[in-house]
Amino acid sequence: MERIEQQAAFAVEIDKVKNIFRQTWLADGSRKENDAEHAWHAALMAVLLAEYSNEPIDILKVVKMLLLHDLVEIDAGDSYAYDEAAQATAHEREQKAADRIFGMLPKDQRQEFRGLWDEFEEYETPEAKFAHVMDNFQPLLLNDAADGKGWKEHQVKRANIEKRNRKTSKGSKRINEYIEQIIDRNIEKGNIEP
Amino acid sequence: MERIEQQAAFAVEIDKVKNIFRQTWLADGSRKENDAEHAWHAALMAVLLAEYSNEPIDILKVVKMLLLHDLVEIDAGDSYAYDEAAQATAHEREQKAADRIFGMLPKDQRQEFRGLWDEFEEYETPEAKFAHVMDNFQPLLLNDAADGKGWKEHQVKRANIEKRNRKTSKGSKRINEYIEQIIDRNIEKGNIEP
Repeated sequence: MERIEQQAAFAVEIDKVKNIFRQTWLADGSRKENDAEHAWHAALMAVLLAEYSNEPIDILKVVKMLLLHDLVEIDAGDSYAYDEAAQATAHEREQKAADRIFGMLPKDQRQEFRGLWDEFEEYETPEAKFAHVMDNFQPLLLNDAADGKGWKEHQVKRANIEKRNRKTSKGSKRINEYIEQIIDRNIEKGNIEP
Repeated sequence: MERIEQQAAFAVEIDKVKNIFRQTWLADGSRKENDAEHAWHAALMAVLLAEYSNEPIDILKVVKMLLLHDLVEIDAGDSYAYDEAAQATAHEREQKAADRIFGMLPKDQRQEFRGLWDEFEEYETPEAKFAHVMDNFQPLLLNDAADGKGWKEHQVKRANIEKRNRKTSKGSKRINEYIEQIIDRNIEKGNIEP
């Protein structure tokens, strides 16, 4: 295959994330969102909120990470944040998926995209930390907007959310504070279990 | 409102693009896609295909443009590429929408986001030209993958597509050639009217 054909085949393959639905309801509560919508929203929020990163970041790298961070779910499926059994086996499934999906790319781009995904997963660099802040804050903001619909559905407890967000302050102290306010407000409303 | 609250309100407002459906079918032909999915796909394709820009580009700027280029459709609705009546009145509706939607942002970001959207609309800079290549190529690639489902549905003619893509070669000669190949193949299959 010619290089551009290989890239076009990849572009068509990744269309499949539009059929991978998450446990997050849209802000209007009408339906759950899919991985493509989530990635778009988190990437645009990264542009919007970059000023709150604790450390200086290469925002292009953050945006690229967020655009591609869920592609592995084409094969591995979505592992709901508060489903511990799914989370426990997700790593191995996602590594295999990354081999296949990024393996469709020309070698230089396979290395770049896989490298970005590995960096996101390793959670070490300032860019990976901030990308994770967006990955967690985006569904939390929607859940708040939808009056806690997803939290109530899964009887989510404060401890679950805080465990999920245990590293958020490493990426952004300011957004972590804001998240704590949202959690407090939703506990008062009975949307989150104390 | 505090700055971060204003930004969060904007982040929730833009969730509405997930309910704005386009005339493009997903690659598997199962349903039409929405503006958030389209923006995600076009932005990731820009990262993937940046090498084919005729001119050097600031890829971060291209990606930002693509992430936000359809936000105005929250108020103005989607104007189908081959619906000339809708296209004729789109400009005024979209300007009004831009005033309101970008007007939700803190002043510095209002200027940045509105500036990016205006630049995209003006179609003059290398970044705007390449962003438009992605905006047009993404649905064409999906239409091809879905065996011309959207073209057949609307009885699209070669002349319609070429009119839509009349400036594509200004952004990318290589992608324009590739598009011509796709059109030829779909005319042979009877998916596009000659």
